[in-house]
Formats: sequence, structure tokens, C-alpha cells
Amino acid sequence: MSKKEIIVQKFGGSSVANAEKIKKAAQKAINEFKQGKQVVMVASARGKQTDQLIADALEVNPNPPKREMDQLLSTGEQQTVSLVAMAIEGMGYKAISFTGAQIRMITDSVHTKARIKSIDVERIKKELDKGNIVIVAGFQGIDENENITTLGRGGSDTSAVALAAALKADTCDIYTDVDGVYTTDPRIFKDAVKLEQISYDEILEMASLGAGVMHGRSIEFGKKYNVIIHVRSSMSDKKGTLITHEVPQMEGILVSGATIEKNLAKVSMVGVDNKPGNAAKIFAHLAEAKVSVNDIIQTEVSKQKANISFTVNKNDFNDAKKAVESIKEKVGCDNVFYRDDIAEVSAIGVGMRTHYGVANMMFSALAKEKINIDSITTSEIRISCLVDKAQGDKALICVCKTFELDKPVNKRSYVK
Amino acid sequence: MSKKEIIVQKFGGSSVANAEKIKKAAQKAINEFKQGKQVVMVASARGKQTDQLIADALEVNPNPPKREMDQLLSTGEQQTVSLVAMAIEGMGYKAISFTGAQIRMITDSVHTKARIKSIDVERIKKELDKGNIVIVAGFQGIDENENITTLGRGGSDTSAVALAAALKADTCDIYTDVDGVYTTDPRIFKDAVKLEQISYDEILEMASLGAGVMHGRSIEFGKKYNVIIHVRSSMSDKKGTLITHEVPQMEGILVSGATIEKNLAKVSMVGVDNKPGNAAKIFAHLAEAKVSVNDIIQTEVSKQKANISFTVNKNDFNDAKKAVESIKEKVGCDNVFYRDDIAEVSAIGVGMRTHYGVANMMFSALAKEKINIDSITTSEIRISCLVDKAQGDKALICVCKTFELDKPVNKRSYVK
Repeated sequence: MSKKEIIVQKFGGSSVANAEKIKKAAQKAINEFKQGKQVVMVASARGKQTDQLIADALEVNPNPPKREMDQLLSTGEQQTVSLVAMAIEGMGYKAISFTGAQIRMITDSVHTKARIKSIDVERIKKELDKGNIVIVAGFQGIDENENITTLGRGGSDTSAVALAAALKADTCDIYTDVDGVYTTDPRIFKDAVKLEQISYDEILEMASLGAGVMHGRSIEFGKKYNVIIHVRSSMSDKKGTLITHEVPQMEGILVSGATIEKNLAKVSMVGVDNKPGNAAKIFAHLAEAKVSVNDIIQTEVSKQKANISFTVNKNDFNDAKKAVESIKEKVGCDNVFYRDDIAEVSAIGVGMRTHYGVANMMFSALAKEKINIDSITTSEIRISCLVDKAQGDKALICVCKTFELDKPVNKRSYVK
Repeated sequence: MSKKEIIVQKFGGSSVANAEKIKKAAQKAINEFKQGKQVVMVASARGKQTDQLIADALEVNPNPPKREMDQLLSTGEQQTVSLVAMAIEGMGYKAISFTGAQIRMITDSVHTKARIKSIDVERIKKELDKGNIVIVAGFQGIDENENITTLGRGGSDTSAVALAAALKADTCDIYTDVDGVYTTDPRIFKDAVKLEQISYDEILEMASLGAGVMHGRSIEFGKKYNVIIHVRSSMSDKKGTLITHEVPQMEGILVSGATIEKNLAKVSMVGVDNKPGNAAKIFAHLAEAKVSVNDIIQTEVSKQKANISFTVNKNDFNDAKKAVESIKEKVGCDNVFYRDDIAEVSAIGVGMRTHYGVANMMFSALAKEKINIDSITTSEIRISCLVDKAQGDKALICVCKTFELDKPVNKRSYVK
């Protein structure tokens, strides 16, 4: 059999929320199939199904065991995939649906946050070769003891990209309710434009900063296994945004996008004893309390003392406080300040690697707008400023204007 | 480890319809566990969940493929079992839930009507020995290719009894919204009384005649593997009805129960060529059309001609008509009569095997009430009369009074 092009399509919950949308998704799969491709669809739970199931769980147990939560929530995707398969059959094409278990999507046993270890694509390939469109339940897998696991928030994206990698698919289309990746959040900066292409590294920085387009882990997968990810709208056939490896012309673009993260809190530990192992002690303690820490800033104040500050997701703020209070004396910390009235504004672009002056452009622009910067962190391709939450939107707009994020990249004055 | 008593409990959809009922079911499992038993619970989908899923399916495809229907419907039970496990954990006891796939409930591949081939109870035993209450999704299995199958109507009963057999459980408690098996339908004969005990054969006849207490296949399983089945109310702790092998004292009871089946239609083929193989031809043809045929009556009218009549479930009536119309000429049938305004009233009792006169008592009683009998069929332990549907209830009441089905068996005048 001659090798056909393989495409993986992923439909999120809002794109399969009701019968009409399910039929639309089915039609998209059929359209690709009619072009001679082998089509694998990954689908999430319909609309608010997952929320409803969580509510059902909390009604019988306010603190439900995670294994059972996975057993429960995985039904949402299973329902969708069987319905999509039915819809496709109803339109005259052959389809078959699979759960994570059925395609041996093997994960570790960390319930509600499992990681994929392997996928057996033999069954899928067999069904594709029989002329079936294959629909796979996203978000879920199974551990080595047949316990159902789920991959955590955005897990269906990860399922789709992992399947695309395992199948050596040509592309992985991520259908969502937006039509691509924008330079920034158009709800705040209304002139934001859609990007034609963005690199894995850039979208990773944007995702981790809350741009919320795709789950970070799925992008890591794509990067590792060279999967071209196409983020596009389930409501149209227009091209969306391609997420790919960095290409040379990206280097001329200083800033691809800007983000704002408001769901943050900051912990500042002042006057920690400046001796080896203290930082490790603090962050090990936080990890034990299952607090996920974002940016860390440590500065030496004297030979004896250092200041350590870090940001956490607001959901983890209480746990972080508890953990810090119980460790602060052991590390000789003089004082701790907490604040949750902050926002983090970031500019992201792989061009920063080879061009100077981006930080300077950003800081001067913010200063001109009288926006006070609480603290700064950077990565190779990102500059982030913590600012007062009240000034957050203003800061983001300022950054967007500075880097001309209202224009396609080839129209920007600073792009070489 | 010393061998503990094992009990299997089955809760139907109405007994787990909401959080409150799920907690009640959980409490029943815990009560048995606290008595030192190992407890396996089998649960159905919550209340109207299955109906909702069927409606969802029909909305995307009015004729959904059966494999996908099974994939869809099996989620209902999966949701229940995880919720029950959560409820039990919330009450301070250990629990773990399993799908049919997880316990390798292997069936054939006849989707929507699969039959159990084997169950791997090792995983269940391991979890029981760890002190877990084990909750298993009823109604579902998996075929040898990992396709999810369902066992058809009442399938959760079959799951429970099959598990009880495989685990060599001491009893299988079937919790339902009635408190046991009644001599007849109390909605029609209000003085019906609860039976303390009934034989597999009797309840099989009642089930197949639509008494609807339990699914026939589950009883066959119980009979074959000696599982004592206890039908009881999920709303109380009162004893219900035990379904067991025949015991000697049952022989004295001429009639244990009476039933009425209204969902029937009758096909009468008049003047079929009386030659070998014609009946086989007709019923093979009906089987091919997937029409399930109930009682068959064949009478020779002459050396050349015979009459063949049979009843079918009303749902199959149209298919039956089509099948009969397309075969009638091939078997030389002169004429066909159809009627769907009939009801079948039956008296059932293992005592009929050894006692005469039951048929006579029944026919005279009906005659006295001026109820015309269209036709009669019997088995070793059953006498059934087809009557006009309009006279159905009256006929049932008449039979009940004749055999004193308003009294416990030891109070009846005719019981030796």
C-alpha cells in the first residue's frame, strides 16, 4: 500500500459542544479524507461536560480520590468520540472511535496529571488502512495496571500532538474557537493581529505566561518530535497559525508577541541567610507542598543575607504562604512580603537572541507611560516585568505599540 | 489469608440516580463490609443517563452504528462506579472502581447484545484482599479486540450474577426499586403478595413473559452456576425474594405467579404447504430479519396444508410483517392474518410438573368470566392464553384469584 499523507485533527470542547458542532467537526474530517489523506481526529469532552462531572463528583465527595476522578472524567471524551464516529458514519464515511485505553496510550500513574510514555499506533494504522476515519479520545491514557489516567488541563492538545508524532503525521491541526495565535490578547489590545507562523520556543513562553492558546506540554512534544502544529478555527476553513521550528527569517522579528498574566501572586523573602543550600531548602519545601513556582529572583544583599522572591499561581498562593511560614525561620529569613495585586507583562521573540536593545525599548516605553516596574525577569527570548495589577492592561498596550504588534511582521518598522 | 465471605451487590439505575442515592448505595456496601465480608458492587448508569445518551446519539445519526453505541452507552456505568467509589472513600472506607475492560469482562462481539465469555477475577480479588470495596461497571464488557460491548437490556443483572459466579460469592443481592418478586403485577392485581422464594425456572418464565423483575440471561447464569440471587429494595434493609434452585416444598405450589404481556403481536399464516422444511424456512427467514419469535403454534389442517402462527414483540412487528410477506409465496401460504390487539396471560409454577388440573382450573375460570381464549401455549411449568387486549387485565385478575395469588403460599387452600 502506497503511503498516504496522515493528518491529525484536534477539536476542543467548545468545537464539539452540541450535535451541530459535532457534525461540523465530522465534516472537516471528511473533507481531508476526500483529499486522499488518512485522518485521525482527537476530541475533547463536549462543552461543559467536564464541569458537570466535576460538580457530580464534589456532590458525593468534596475531596474525591484522583484515580476515581480520572475514571469519571475520561467518560466525557469517550462520549464525544463515539458521537463523532456516529456522525461521520451518518454522512456516509467509515469511522471508528477509540479510548486512550484502546490504543494503549500508556502513561505514568500520576492521576489527573499523567505523562504519556508510549502509544501503540498499530491498531490505528490498521483501521486507517481499512479506510476508516479514526477518532481518539483526548486527555486520557491508561497506566501499566489498566488504571485510567488523565493528562491534566489542555491534555487533549498533548494527546493530538503525541499521536501526530507517533504516526509521523504531516500536520496536527488544532481546531479551536479562535482562528490562530495572535500577537497578543485582542480583548486588551484590540489591534492585535494573527501570526502566520511562530516558533515552538515562542509559543512555549506565551503558553507558560498564560496566553492559553495551547498547553505547554503539547508544544514541547511537537518541538521534540518535529510536529507541525496548525492552530485554526473550527468555524472556517481559513489558514490559522503554524507552530514550527525556528526559521531564519524569524530572527529579524524582535518581538513576536506579548502577554499578560494576572493570576499571579508574589512572595518576597527578605534577609534569608546567605548560605549554600538555603534556596534549595525553600524550593524543595514548596515542591513538597505541591506549589508550582514561576519566576525566581535571588539577590545578595550582603555577605550574610540575600533576598529571594518568586511568583506563584494565585491558586497556589495559600499553600505557598503556609509553606513559606513554616520554613522561614529555618533559613533565617527576617521578613516575608506577599502581594497578589500584580500582573506580569512580557514581550517574546526569538529575535532577542541575536538583537540587542529590546529590553531597553521596553523599559523606556513603560517609563514614558509612568508605569512602575516592580521587578524584571528574562529568558533568552523573553522579557517580563511585574507591574501593579491596576496598570497591567496599560502596560501591555504600551508594549504592543512599542513593538508594533498591530502589524504583520513584514510591515513593522524595526524588522530587518 | 482466611477465606472471607464474598457478597456481590447490584444497584440499578434508579437506585443510583443522584448523589443522595449513590451515598445510600455506598452505605449498603459499607454495612456488609463492616460485617467482615468482601464486597463487590455492580452498578448501572444513573437514572435517565442512558436515555439521554441515546437521544444524543440519535441527534447526530438516526441510525447509529452499534459498536459506537456501545462505546457511548458504556460511559454511563463508568460514571456511576467512579462516583460510588468516591462516595465510599468519602465515608472513610477504601474503594476502587473498574470498567468492564479493566476486569477483562470478555464477551463476544455482538454489539448491544453481547454475551459474556470469561471474567478475570484476579484483579478484583487482589483489590478485595487489600481491603477495598470493589465497584464494577455493569452492562459492559470488551471483546477480544478491545472493542467495548454492552450486554443489552438488564445487562447489569447479568454482570452481577456472572461476577458472583466467577468469584464464587455466597449471594448476589439485586437492589431495585421494588422490594422483591411479587406473585403478579400489583398495578393490575393490587392484592399481589411478595414471594419469599422462587425457582430459577419460574422466574425465567416470568421474566421472558415480561414481568420485568430481572433479565432472563442473568437468571440462566445464576441457575447454571448456583448463584443465590436476592432481589430486594434499595430503600430498606428488609429481606426480599430469594431466587434459588427448586426445593421440594415448591412442588406443592401449583402456581407461584401470574404474568401479563401486552407488548405482543400475532402473526397467523393460514394454509402453508404441509411439507418438511417449510416451518424451518419461515423461521430461518425471520431470524435473518432479526425478528425474535415467541410462542409458535403449528397445526395440521390437512395432508396438504398447515396453519402456523406465532407471536412477536411489538417492536419487531413491522420487520416480521415484511419478512412474512416476502416468504409467504415460497411456502405456499394462502393467507396471513396479523393482530396486535392481544395480550398473553400466563400462570407459572414448578408444581405443574407433578400436578394435573391446573390448565383446567385456568380455562374454566376464564370461561366463567366470559373471556375468550384466542390460543393456548404451554411449557412444563407454564400455561399461557392469548386473549383480547381489552380483556387482558380482567383475565390476569381472574387467574390470580383462581390460584389465590393474594395469599402467601402456605395459606392457599390448594397447597398441599
